[in-house]
Amino acid sequence: MSHNSFGHLFRVTTFGESHGPAIGCVVDGTPPRLSLDEADLQRDLDRRRPGQSRHTTQRREADAARILSGVFEGLTTGTPIAVLIENTDQRSKDYGDIAGKFRPGHADYTYEAKYGIRDHRGGGRSSARETASRVAAGAIARKVLGDGVSVRAALVQLGADRLEVPADSWDWDEVDRNPLFCPDAATAERWAARLDDVRKSGDSIGAVVHVEALGVPAGWGAPVYGKLDQDIAAALMSINAVKGVEIGAGFGAAALRGSENADEMEPGPNGAPHFTSNHAGGILGGISSGQPVVARFAVKPTSSILVPRRTVDRDGRATEIITRGRHDPCVGIRAVPVAEAMMACVLADHALRHRAQCGG
Amino acid sequence: MSHNSFGHLFRVTTFGESHGPAIGCVVDGTPPRLSLDEADLQRDLDRRRPGQSRHTTQRREADAARILSGVFEGLTTGTPIAVLIENTDQRSKDYGDIAGKFRPGHADYTYEAKYGIRDHRGGGRSSARETASRVAAGAIARKVLGDGVSVRAALVQLGADRLEVPADSWDWDEVDRNPLFCPDAATAERWAARLDDVRKSGDSIGAVVHVEALGVPAGWGAPVYGKLDQDIAAALMSINAVKGVEIGAGFGAAALRGSENADEMEPGPNGAPHFTSNHAGGILGGISSGQPVVARFAVKPTSSILVPRRTVDRDGRATEIITRGRHDPCVGIRAVPVAEAMMACVLADHALRHRAQCGG
Amino acid sequence: MSHNSFGHLFRVTTFGESHGPAIGCVVDGTPPRLSLDEADLQRDLDRRRPGQSRHTTQRREADAARILSGVFEGLTTGTPIAVLIENTDQRSKDYGDIAGKFRPGHADYTYEAKYGIRDHRGGGRSSARETASRVAAGAIARKVLGDGVSVRAALVQLGADRLEVPADSWDWDEVDRNPLFCPDAATAERWAARLDDVRKSGDSIGAVVHVEALGVPAGWGAPVYGKLDQDIAAALMSINAVKGVEIGAGFGAAALRGSENADEMEPGPNGAPHFTSNHAGGILGGISSGQPVVARFAVKPTSSILVPRRTVDRDGRATEIITRGRHDPCVGIRAVPVAEAMMACVLADHALRHRAQCGG
Amino acid sequence: MSHNSFGHLFRVTTFGESHGPAIGCVVDGTPPRLSLDEADLQRDLDRRRPGQSRHTTQRREADAARILSGVFEGLTTGTPIAVLIENTDQRSKDYGDIAGKFRPGHADYTYEAKYGIRDHRGGGRSSARETASRVAAGAIARKVLGDGVSVRAALVQLGADRLEVPADSWDWDEVDRNPLFCPDAATAERWAARLDDVRKSGDSIGAVVHVEALGVPAGWGAPVYGKLDQDIAAALMSINAVKGVEIGAGFGAAALRGSENADEMEPGPNGAPHFTSNHAGGILGGISSGQPVVARFAVKPTSSILVPRRTVDRDGRATEIITRGRHDPCVGIRAVPVAEAMMACVLADHALRHRAQCGG
Repeated sequence: MSHNSFGHLFRVTTFGESHGPAIGCVVDGTPPRLSLDEADLQRDLDRRRPGQSRHTTQRREADAARILSGVFEGLTTGTPIAVLIENTDQRSKDYGDIAGKFRPGHADYTYEAKYGIRDHRGGGRSSARETASRVAAGAIARKVLGDGVSVRAALVQLGADRLEVPADSWDWDEVDRNPLFCPDAATAERWAARLDDVRKSGDSIGAVVHVEALGVPAGWGAPVYGKLDQDIAAALMSINAVKGVEIGAGFGAAALRGSENADEMEPGPNGAPHFTSNHAGGILGGISSGQPVVARFAVKPTSSILVPRRTVDRDGRATEIITRGRHDPCVGIRAVPVAEAMMACVLADHALRHRAQCGG
Repeated sequence: MSHNSFGHLFRVTTFGESHGPAIGCVVDGTPPRLSLDEADLQRDLDRRRPGQSRHTTQRREADAARILSGVFEGLTTGTPIAVLIENTDQRSKDYGDIAGKFRPGHADYTYEAKYGIRDHRGGGRSSARETASRVAAGAIARKVLGDGVSVRAALVQLGADRLEVPADSWDWDEVDRNPLFCPDAATAERWAARLDDVRKSGDSIGAVVHVEALGVPAGWGAPVYGKLDQDIAAALMSINAVKGVEIGAGFGAAALRGSENADEMEPGPNGAPHFTSNHAGGILGGISSGQPVVARFAVKPTSSILVPRRTVDRDGRATEIITRGRHDPCVGIRAVPVAEAMMACVLADHALRHRAQCGG
Repeated sequence: MSHNSFGHLFRVTTFGESHGPAIGCVVDGTPPRLSLDEADLQRDLDRRRPGQSRHTTQRREADAARILSGVFEGLTTGTPIAVLIENTDQRSKDYGDIAGKFRPGHADYTYEAKYGIRDHRGGGRSSARETASRVAAGAIARKVLGDGVSVRAALVQLGADRLEVPADSWDWDEVDRNPLFCPDAATAERWAARLDDVRKSGDSIGAVVHVEALGVPAGWGAPVYGKLDQDIAAALMSINAVKGVEIGAGFGAAALRGSENADEMEPGPNGAPHFTSNHAGGILGGISSGQPVVARFAVKPTSSILVPRRTVDRDGRATEIITRGRHDPCVGIRAVPVAEAMMACVLADHALRHRAQCGG
Repeated sequence: MSHNSFGHLFRVTTFGESHGPAIGCVVDGTPPRLSLDEADLQRDLDRRRPGQSRHTTQRREADAARILSGVFEGLTTGTPIAVLIENTDQRSKDYGDIAGKFRPGHADYTYEAKYGIRDHRGGGRSSARETASRVAAGAIARKVLGDGVSVRAALVQLGADRLEVPADSWDWDEVDRNPLFCPDAATAERWAARLDDVRKSGDSIGAVVHVEALGVPAGWGAPVYGKLDQDIAAALMSINAVKGVEIGAGFGAAALRGSENADEMEPGPNGAPHFTSNHAGGILGGISSGQPVVARFAVKPTSSILVPRRTVDRDGRATEIITRGRHDPCVGIRAVPVAEAMMACVLADHALRHRAQCGG
């Protein structure tokens, strides 16, 4: 057991605080002889990196990942891969005010209640900065999955404003062209304007992210507490600020009749069945069906805002707080590459678990 | 690692198929000297038991739980508690048709794809019958939590029809008076009529369940992959037919501004802060805040229906299937006591995990 | 984590007390489509079964194993295999005296110190009766390993009296012909006489068991905390009354020079190296080398003896105790089939772990 | 599961290769608010550090441990503690010869067989250099244990030459005064001379290490696969070159009668029993008895020797090898502080596990 590890056979342990000297991860269980170098990690890290547009925090971190072990002459060796990312742009003085006050919506109070101590600088361990380690691990997971499986995510709702373009008309190439990871250029523009308003008002806004994996073969996952959807739910819910996760039709399935919700099958190519719909989100009984694996999750609005909020201090006295510093007005945006990383890690783990029990 | 265990310190392993000789569980890690007997388990099992009303499957199972170990003279000893529930009313002949055909929405195809074999009788391991073991484990978990923590659940949506009574006006005593576990008598009546229609049409319907825990102290849960909400999400998503989970404001949080979503604090009794709202669902940064822990989850409509659906057989040929047998028209109903059990198990685990690291 | 489970991918959980209604195990992770029935388990269980000769306890247990799940039409399904063994010959009245006194060498005092309660009947959970569950699990492990790997064990020392026949002259067929599992008929006779003396004196005696696996391919095990020898050491040390474990040359290696201890290699058949000796016991750096995997372990003399020993009672007062009841004068004997089971379980686990990470 | 982690609640993950840029560990589960700084780690690291005397490798490593996370203003925060130790004195050119040949007694061949690739520089992951990470973790474990528990180790056999001073006459202060960690000055001198001979002959020699913990309360450990002795056996067997482990009387117990081996009890101070002997090594039924916890382990002679040995190369051809480079003539010496670290880590884990289940 570990509070700071996830996965079983593809196992990721992360460490580090927002304003400590460094953050990083140790990834264990990677199959040997996969090509891997720091550039593989950097590609994904750069997508999550802060300061890339006016819509994310202006903290400037190079997020340069250094591989300390587990790779020899460009190939994984099967031993643990340690990745180190140094923190370079800590401005801890920004956070003086929060040492003694609990920011509403943040983990300040609960860390204090649990541990009787907390590294208050920038949220310490509870900071979304930790997700850089996940993205590094996710890049390794992609190598484990190989070219047959692709994982991609997009922002599909900003505040109450849903993307209205149907999923089969999304432009996945557009996702990396706009700073909001939106699969529709017009919507991205509308959201950017809305986000400017939010930022100028010193407030923040929530979002919904869609993440999917293509090419997952039928058979990954396991009954009954190693279900693929269960592990995806846990992985996505563990991302900072996430408050809800759904698979396939999700909450919408509650409103359906059984005759509508059941994904009918007909003979498909290569002997595998063809499903006429995908309400299941590619998972039946916790095991992948060969269809795309589809999940969505809700991200609450950033809790660090310039609107003053009532709170208490460490001595229990009433006070007010404004959270200065450099923050994302919508943490859902940078959650997009993080979602891909978590999905990739869960799938890599299940790929190995399936091979262990069933071979092939 | 185990595919069929969950929890770390309060660890539950279940076994058994719907139409095998028995199902059961082994619960390890229970503190010693807690009073426990079979009646404690039976109380919760009887709430989940089939055949209690016309709204659930007519399979007649006594669901009599027998404790095989770990209890001595009415007290837990700290050693594993094994619970055995014999299957008595298997009518496997009902299932002849499904041996060779894959039921849409069921795990038939995916089990076959994974293992190349499946116990097709009544769904085998994928049957919701497995949840009886969870309920037995949940009754033990309640003992671990003690009287200070109470866990309760209710049906809050049937199909698209939401309970419109606001949460603070729910009648929790009503939940056990109607067969739908609805916290409002009038709504229960309306839903019962709707459910009769659904059943008569041979179809099924989805639902949403609300589950909450009162009395959870601040400090349970742990960063960053041992988050309380992450473990609740995994536990609830592992219940048969669940397709979505949310904590607190959940997907609704995506539509809020940060200034609306942040639960403000003011000085409360006993030095602990008083939160003026609970969008967080009692969890901040993965750690309980002392507020009620609140989750909801969506249950898809039962996949076993009398409406014919297109499918393929084991040889890949197109065919149709009607699922006869005895089924719940809405599996969401009996998911209510299961939800309580899973929530109780997760909390018991975290209570022990917290005590391990932080004492007291 | 679980105190009562071992293995990671081939995962065994046991439950039950010596004088409760039943003992048993749940084995998870077994690959699907292996042929398995109760007779497979019974063969090994009968070798461990008490009452087979005058040299073991006269308790009469059928040790009839019943498979409750995970097997369908004679084949494993990949779901958990639950095995139940009912206790039928409990004479708990024999144990009245030990309810209030701590038997020296037994776990009575430490269970009481840990839990503040213990099921004193026959040692409860600490009884060697628990090892029947291990043997059942071991029989399943052998199926996972297949015919290519064979595991066998023998008694090689009784008290201070070592088997003097060199290992390459042992008669493995003889092991199952004498009740002491000794690989030499003459020695078995000598030990039987010695054991009669010990039994008649109301005392007990220790032993050393040798266990080995043939056919283990090179590559099982893993650095640096998943070492094959580490897991074997843990598995053997967990057997009741075991006080020491060694691999290959073991403690004898301490007395050697590096030039003597190093197992030299020369070109062997099929491209694999041929080792000219096996001081390593088939394991280098925690990974199997393709040589026989060889371990030995020391079993202390049975603590249940008729010789009066000084002790204290539950109130801390000085007293004496004689342990009546039916006991093995040398628990090392019945540890032989248990050792095979544990070795098989560890190897099955590592076979799956290796396949997970490295394929094929 | 992880191949490179150990412990459950006090969980240690290590990474790094002998000649990579750095090695290190992540320690998770440490209770909060323990005082900890880098000097605490350095004290123990300096005892293990190479190049301290002529009897250990002449590689010069500062082994300067840097704490990257989990400590704030001199106190642990309860979040993962990452420790980084940079490698500074790699002379990889020394190892050119071993890239293509398998050193007998080393893990070269088995890593290659498992992974199809290995970082051959200085043994890569299989190098004893990894044990520096263990020592760092052990220093943290000591903090968890607090002043009430002390762990100490000593060399008690060099080659076939046993320390003849009885344990109760050992001079524990002497252990840190001589470079062999021997608790008797005269013996240390004799061994030093012997070791000089061995080194000059280009050969190496084995050893036996004794490790014990004082102050462990009764009640740590757990039946039946979480036994304290089982976890100690695993932890010690995982140390490089260890081939045997024993607890208390160990293999000697095999030669005893039950009446000799049973540690009798009499009323002791504070209500706890006083044991008149400690054949059990402080552990009964896998649970600590309150007596000193005592273990011993055998270390094989260093496999890196200047005596030419027959081997094969990566192409399977016969060849000879001499292992140049800088090596310990007796790896057992530096295993002494490593043994303390492993014992401390196991005990810290069980302290937390006990508190989780049983409180206090």
